[in-house]
Amino acid sequence: MEYIKNPGRIEEKSFEIIQDIIDEIRADYKFKSEIEEMIIKRAIHTTADFDYLDILKISDGAVENILQALNNKATIYTDTNMALSGINKRILDCIGCKYYCLISDEKTANLAKEKQITRSMAAVDIAAQDENEKIFIFGNAPTAVYRAIELDNEGKLNANAIIGVPVGFVGAQDSKEELVNSNIESIVSQGRKGGSNLAAAIINAILYYYFR
Amino acid sequence: MEYIKNPGRIEEKSFEIIQDIIDEIRADYKFKSEIEEMIIKRAIHTTADFDYLDILKISDGAVENILQALNNKATIYTDTNMALSGINKRILDCIGCKYYCLISDEKTANLAKEKQITRSMAAVDIAAQDENEKIFIFGNAPTAVYRAIELDNEGKLNANAIIGVPVGFVGAQDSKEELVNSNIESIVSQGRKGGSNLAAAIINAILYYYFR
Repeated sequence: MEYIKNPGRIEEKSFEIIQDIIDEIRADYKFKSEIEEMIIKRAIHTTADFDYLDILKISDGAVENILQALNNKATIYTDTNMALSGINKRILDCIGCKYYCLISDEKTANLAKEKQITRSMAAVDIAAQDENEKIFIFGNAPTAVYRAIELDNEGKLNANAIIGVPVGFVGAQDSKEELVNSNIESIVSQGRKGGSNLAAAIINAILYYYFR
Repeated sequence: MEYIKNPGRIEEKSFEIIQDIIDEIRADYKFKSEIEEMIIKRAIHTTADFDYLDILKISDGAVENILQALNNKATIYTDTNMALSGINKRILDCIGCKYYCLISDEKTANLAKEKQITRSMAAVDIAAQDENEKIFIFGNAPTAVYRAIELDNEGKLNANAIIGVPVGFVGAQDSKEELVNSNIESIVSQGRKGGSNLAAAIINAILYYYFR
């Protein structure tokens, strides 16, 4: 069988096809900036879902805040191991950023039990105590999004930005609306769609654009 | 803020909403079996994408072969760490199945270099040598799907089944069509859609149905 086996060439060709399809289905579509284009196209690359042309909302200062955080060796906290495993750790290591998913930590489980909250919420509580600059990346847990907003309202979150793209049918949509309406700089997939794969793709798009 | 914080209740409620939406948008839709229903609904649960009502193709013997393999302590090989991280390892440990993603192994990198093939292909080559019963789970790499078919044609794969759901614009669709047309029992997402999250969701649906 004949097929393209060069990974770099596969990615390049994929992005060409994505642009061709956008030209075909949405000839009038305009990206607001090059980085927005890269984020949205990578979201489509990861999902093959062109809904992301319309449902990804990037707040005005989100990319700038994330970039600043990355330049300042911020710590990245994800809500799932799956999101963490999809993030390009080679680049993060290279620029000196740390990255954690606390969901399976014993400390998280204990705190969740003690406070009668989800482990996703407890993980946010623990991460919030980190005095380092922080980026939160949520692809799964609406309760994590809600908790982050609660802590931010109490002045206890101190996150540079949140990538908030939980997928699902209970809480996902509402939690993301709350996030869009909060004071936190954010990148959000409006509606039900999203996921850990998308969460990783969004931060990777930013990493590739500025650091590759 | 008020929101559901009980994970079990969130999942139950999600599946109710998914059924409600199916009733609304596809009143005439019929699942062929209970396990097919569980697989497709979990695919939708993971993606919030109802296209999976139409594009998931489960070959006649796929679930039976996977179940037999799981009962025989098969080894599971995934093409990405992301797929591996999404799979329910508690159940796999409990039933005595091993699970690996070989993509980052040094042995894989060396073989890829030596043979001038992708690491995804080299990982399949190495896994194929495992004499244990085997399930392959591909959510990302069309080249892995193609390689598995090639090896099967040469009688060298010996896989019980393949969950083949790579997402993308170059090779994904074609490789999955080849898989559907091969002699290998498979679960495939036709077209461009799929992903590591979906790959994990499909095997989890089977694990939850038979072993939870």
